[in-house]
Amino acid sequence: MTTEKYQAGSAEQPLDIINLYDLEKEAGEVVPKGGFGYIYSGAGDLYTINENITAFNHKYIAPRVLQDIENPDTTTEIFGDHLTSPIIMAPVAAHKLVNTKGEAATAKGVADYGSILTMSSFASASIDDMATAADGAPQWFQLYMSKDNDINRKILDEAMAHNVKAIVLTADATVGGNRETDKRNHFTFPVGLPIVEAYQTGVGQTMDAVYKSAKQRLNPKDVEFISEYTHLPVFVKGIQTAEDVEIALQAGAKGIWVSNHGGRQLDGGPAAFDSLHVVAKAVNKRVPIVFDSGVRRGQHVFKALAEGADIVAIGRPVIYGLALGGAQGVQSVFNYLQKELELVMQLAGTHNIDEVKATHLVDNHYGN
Amino acid sequence: MTTEKYQAGSAEQPLDIINLYDLEKEAGEVVPKGGFGYIYSGAGDLYTINENITAFNHKYIAPRVLQDIENPDTTTEIFGDHLTSPIIMAPVAAHKLVNTKGEAATAKGVADYGSILTMSSFASASIDDMATAADGAPQWFQLYMSKDNDINRKILDEAMAHNVKAIVLTADATVGGNRETDKRNHFTFPVGLPIVEAYQTGVGQTMDAVYKSAKQRLNPKDVEFISEYTHLPVFVKGIQTAEDVEIALQAGAKGIWVSNHGGRQLDGGPAAFDSLHVVAKAVNKRVPIVFDSGVRRGQHVFKALAEGADIVAIGRPVIYGLALGGAQGVQSVFNYLQKELELVMQLAGTHNIDEVKATHLVDNHYGN
Amino acid sequence: MTTEKYQAGSAEQPLDIINLYDLEKEAGEVVPKGGFGYIYSGAGDLYTINENITAFNHKYIAPRVLQDIENPDTTTEIFGDHLTSPIIMAPVAAHKLVNTKGEAATAKGVADYGSILTMSSFASASIDDMATAADGAPQWFQLYMSKDNDINRKILDEAMAHNVKAIVLTADATVGGNRETDKRNHFTFPVGLPIVEAYQTGVGQTMDAVYKSAKQRLNPKDVEFISEYTHLPVFVKGIQTAEDVEIALQAGAKGIWVSNHGGRQLDGGPAAFDSLHVVAKAVNKRVPIVFDSGVRRGQHVFKALAEGADIVAIGRPVIYGLALGGAQGVQSVFNYLQKELELVMQLAGTHNIDEVKATHLVDNHYGN
Amino acid sequence: MTTEKYQAGSAEQPLDIINLYDLEKEAGEVVPKGGFGYIYSGAGDLYTINENITAFNHKYIAPRVLQDIENPDTTTEIFGDHLTSPIIMAPVAAHKLVNTKGEAATAKGVADYGSILTMSSFASASIDDMATAADGAPQWFQLYMSKDNDINRKILDEAMAHNVKAIVLTADATVGGNRETDKRNHFTFPVGLPIVEAYQTGVGQTMDAVYKSAKQRLNPKDVEFISEYTHLPVFVKGIQTAEDVEIALQAGAKGIWVSNHGGRQLDGGPAAFDSLHVVAKAVNKRVPIVFDSGVRRGQHVFKALAEGADIVAIGRPVIYGLALGGAQGVQSVFNYLQKELELVMQLAGTHNIDEVKATHLVDNHYGN
Repeated sequence: MTTEKYQAGSAEQPLDIINLYDLEKEAGEVVPKGGFGYIYSGAGDLYTINENITAFNHKYIAPRVLQDIENPDTTTEIFGDHLTSPIIMAPVAAHKLVNTKGEAATAKGVADYGSILTMSSFASASIDDMATAADGAPQWFQLYMSKDNDINRKILDEAMAHNVKAIVLTADATVGGNRETDKRNHFTFPVGLPIVEAYQTGVGQTMDAVYKSAKQRLNPKDVEFISEYTHLPVFVKGIQTAEDVEIALQAGAKGIWVSNHGGRQLDGGPAAFDSLHVVAKAVNKRVPIVFDSGVRRGQHVFKALAEGADIVAIGRPVIYGLALGGAQGVQSVFNYLQKELELVMQLAGTHNIDEVKATHLVDNHYGN
Repeated sequence: MTTEKYQAGSAEQPLDIINLYDLEKEAGEVVPKGGFGYIYSGAGDLYTINENITAFNHKYIAPRVLQDIENPDTTTEIFGDHLTSPIIMAPVAAHKLVNTKGEAATAKGVADYGSILTMSSFASASIDDMATAADGAPQWFQLYMSKDNDINRKILDEAMAHNVKAIVLTADATVGGNRETDKRNHFTFPVGLPIVEAYQTGVGQTMDAVYKSAKQRLNPKDVEFISEYTHLPVFVKGIQTAEDVEIALQAGAKGIWVSNHGGRQLDGGPAAFDSLHVVAKAVNKRVPIVFDSGVRRGQHVFKALAEGADIVAIGRPVIYGLALGGAQGVQSVFNYLQKELELVMQLAGTHNIDEVKATHLVDNHYGN
Repeated sequence: MTTEKYQAGSAEQPLDIINLYDLEKEAGEVVPKGGFGYIYSGAGDLYTINENITAFNHKYIAPRVLQDIENPDTTTEIFGDHLTSPIIMAPVAAHKLVNTKGEAATAKGVADYGSILTMSSFASASIDDMATAADGAPQWFQLYMSKDNDINRKILDEAMAHNVKAIVLTADATVGGNRETDKRNHFTFPVGLPIVEAYQTGVGQTMDAVYKSAKQRLNPKDVEFISEYTHLPVFVKGIQTAEDVEIALQAGAKGIWVSNHGGRQLDGGPAAFDSLHVVAKAVNKRVPIVFDSGVRRGQHVFKALAEGADIVAIGRPVIYGLALGGAQGVQSVFNYLQKELELVMQLAGTHNIDEVKATHLVDNHYGN
Repeated sequence: MTTEKYQAGSAEQPLDIINLYDLEKEAGEVVPKGGFGYIYSGAGDLYTINENITAFNHKYIAPRVLQDIENPDTTTEIFGDHLTSPIIMAPVAAHKLVNTKGEAATAKGVADYGSILTMSSFASASIDDMATAADGAPQWFQLYMSKDNDINRKILDEAMAHNVKAIVLTADATVGGNRETDKRNHFTFPVGLPIVEAYQTGVGQTMDAVYKSAKQRLNPKDVEFISEYTHLPVFVKGIQTAEDVEIALQAGAKGIWVSNHGGRQLDGGPAAFDSLHVVAKAVNKRVPIVFDSGVRRGQHVFKALAEGADIVAIGRPVIYGLALGGAQGVQSVFNYLQKELELVMQLAGTHNIDEVKATHLVDNHYGN
């Protein structure tokens, strides 16, 4: 695949959304094949990526009635920042794969909605671009570490200079997952990765090469380093076990991010949702929990909150919104998902996010 | 969709029925697309609507032999009214979507069969039309409350004036579910809703707008209000939890109606049949239980009774019968389902409905 | 369907069998549609008929090694009669639907193989025809009772005169199941039922009408009556519960026949194989157990024996063999299934039927 | 099928592999139908062969993070021989079915990779051919016993003369499984079986005839005989129960090989992976465990090691590599699978094979 031929669009429009699954189909028609394959697909047999969605059926929401509810309140806050809903934007690499406006448009759409963009280290835009577009809205910064801490310091300096509110250390991607779709498409990055250009320029590189250029030997001291250097709350992202909760918290993490990287890394591992209650029990409310991987419905957001998440992050659907509608498309995705969440909250008899989080889900004894 | 173009048929004939699933296919050929979509479809991913039917496979009927049975007796009674079988008609909006004769034909068919029609507040006919057609047969009245109790009193006055035997307060639809089929079809009501015209005329409205015009903040005091105002037994409809049983009974409900609104409201909730034994245990025979959602077979009726229901309501199959055969079609549906029930009763070794209700079903440990 | 048009074939040849499922496909090409539908299909949604086969996956045979086996011995005996294998022929109505030679050919094939034919009361041949064809081989007689015991006595007299070794009282078919395939085919019997002609001639009748003409109100006294009148061992056929085991044994039954009539009667009931261990536990070796419903493989025979059956009956596969090869086809089916059984016995490390019956199967915790 | 017409290819090239499933499709295009059917297919309904692969989903690998890992070490050793990874080559008959270079090419490819070829008694090459091609790399010898121990001694003499490091007694194939694909293809061996030519020449024979010519009555004394005669460690292959572990170990076995012969023998038995923990518990580290049947992914190797295997053998994928690329194709398959294993090790937080073996997998409560 030669980078010259890669032609992303530049849509900018609000979207009329029936459901988020439709967006994937529609985005597949406008995003170039290699980039679309990189985004939608997952690892290996696609078992875990598929389970990420079906696992939500392992628990039921029991409808509640006569609860005197109208217009349930989705607002919440994290680290003092007020959010329109608990739905934030997960870190996703290289938004310019789907829209020439890239991360700046995403940042604007998320800020206009009233939520948080987690900037990716592998963004196709600079930190400054994203921060400028957010115009003061809170943002977090996700870090893929260089093997060289001097470089890491410079990257973190830049993030701090733009006033990010938290650092997210992605720990489940010390190498790239087995992405067969990318292999079949001979996909290489057609866009640059300016934030990490000190160790990886990106253009013409396979995902695997990009990951390999970052640090493999992540360990608890990295959490300590980031925490001490930035004095910002650090999330460790990619946690699915009680053991890793303890390791992360003892290293100074101030947040736990439950994720299996959207089914893109270890195939044959559990659905992120199935791991959530295990992690939540181990965390025991000591720090906030962010959850991602598989969220496509308001009921998924509701179930994740009920199982222990404080914040729910979405990735692919927002990228599809960006592909189809730029900043306005991004905002449409958040608005739409919030509307689904409100509907579920109403029918589940919950007035606000605290009540959602206090809800006891019903076990589905019959699998899915 | 413009209302001018909507053309329902006016069939009037008895039906030769192989099974109730076939009726859905056949009705789909005669009912206009928008109306048919509104009727057959459900909420969100259609998970709960599909589970409503497959969940009956979670329990087995063990055949019994040598029980000295011939012509098992399906008759039963509720609140002193004698019924041909425990199968009654659930409240369903706007029967004129499928047959120009509308609810009057349904009322006649149900009465001729010897059972109860639950009039819907969102009927496309007046209470008087339905009562007149029933010609003295017992009927119940389902209420979607106005936000204004003066209007509610007038609606209830009309129902009482026509001698309804119970009021059914639908509590699981304080907003419309996520009906994607309706969105795709751009469906709006082509017919009026005379009973609630004081707060909602219906014509040209989306289902969502119709629900929004009714009362969202349902609460236990509404049960008390209806109960005290009408002195009629009040069912709370849409209950799937033990907690809501207590709330409803403490508020004065004299019946519990287990339902998930035919999978049209909260997708991601349990199948109604899976909730039934939980509710029945909580009710503990203090009041009668009506069950609906997913009943298409005689074995479903049998299993619902065995799990704790006293009465089983059906909706969509009757509407298909109405579409295909008017009042006679409606009666054919009830006759057919009774015949299936009799066959199951014979082969399960049960002489009458009391024995059906005393039957212990066998757990299916292998899901479905 | 007019009986004049019904044309069964008259094949007579040995069969080269790959597996018994193939036979169904092949028989479907030579048997007239109405007759084939009557034979292969089942009740209602076909849930139970399909479960009858898949339920064998609920248990595993653990292979055993180093057991010093060659040519495992499938012979067994019942009521003093020696059998080539524990596989016998179940009662099946109207063999002339598939081959003009009818039950006489089946009787010869089964006798040549060295096993037992259970004559059906609804045979399209006389008891004398079947007994003559068997030429001294042991046979059992299945009874559908008349409402009139004088008629029953005459039928039993005829069976005793032909020296049958046991009476099988079918108790799970006091009415016909919900056979939708027959309804769609407008199937009526094109052949006569000579054994029961005193109460039902058969020709031109629906299956339902045939069943209705027999006795519905079967009860324990019928077991006593047959037992006392014939002094033969009586099986009650169609038992799937511990309760019915006690009722049958207390009424004098000398054998229990576990069956759900091949999934032709109560849809929504358990697979026969799933009921077998429940029944076997209740019988506790007091009398022999015959098992049928769903047996298509040597591993099925093995598993049924391991779960408590002493004898395994097959029906449809033999009828397909009859359709395709007459008496020789019938014998081919038995020979083939025995060969599969021997292979399984060898690989499971079992020398003989007693060892098979002593085998402990492994639970499959993952359904099927 | 006449042997004259059978034309295997003679490919020799490295392979660019996306995944091992693709290889089966690609091999199916170059290997003659009869030979390909013999290789890819399994017994009976193909239930167990399919379960062999899906059963790996019964357990999850929980991803671990912050474990300070780069380039995990796959090396291990068995009986003092150093291996590049725990992945070895299972015994498979008649490699010349897929490549005219046959076992010599396989032996070279495996040796070049740095692992062990288990020579099959039913090889289409001589022991000398295979040993010569391995050029000093460790090899094991799999034995199908003759009924005549003089012949067995001569075969074992030849193996010992070529310095094999262990003898593998296949105990789960005392007769051929029910291979319907072979029956449909009328498959007979088009190539000779030189190692066992004293009791079976092979050419023109069905698989069934080949197995029948070997010894059926395997028993513990055979293990003793081989062990005493060769003074080599003897594996008993085909063990899936705790009982057989004890029998084998008491007879002198120095290794247990868990396998169901790739789903080619007893259909209706458990997946090999489901049996592994049962066997491992019984072995309790007294002797090494080899595992095969269903391994197609690095995650499968990982899971098998975590469940108790010391060594994991693969068969069909290597044969496909041989068909498509000769010795280099064989080596490509091992290299590829190792790369998948390394990726899983990295993402599971394990530095080396000992840590993999100490990993606790997560139960999947939802089947599939």
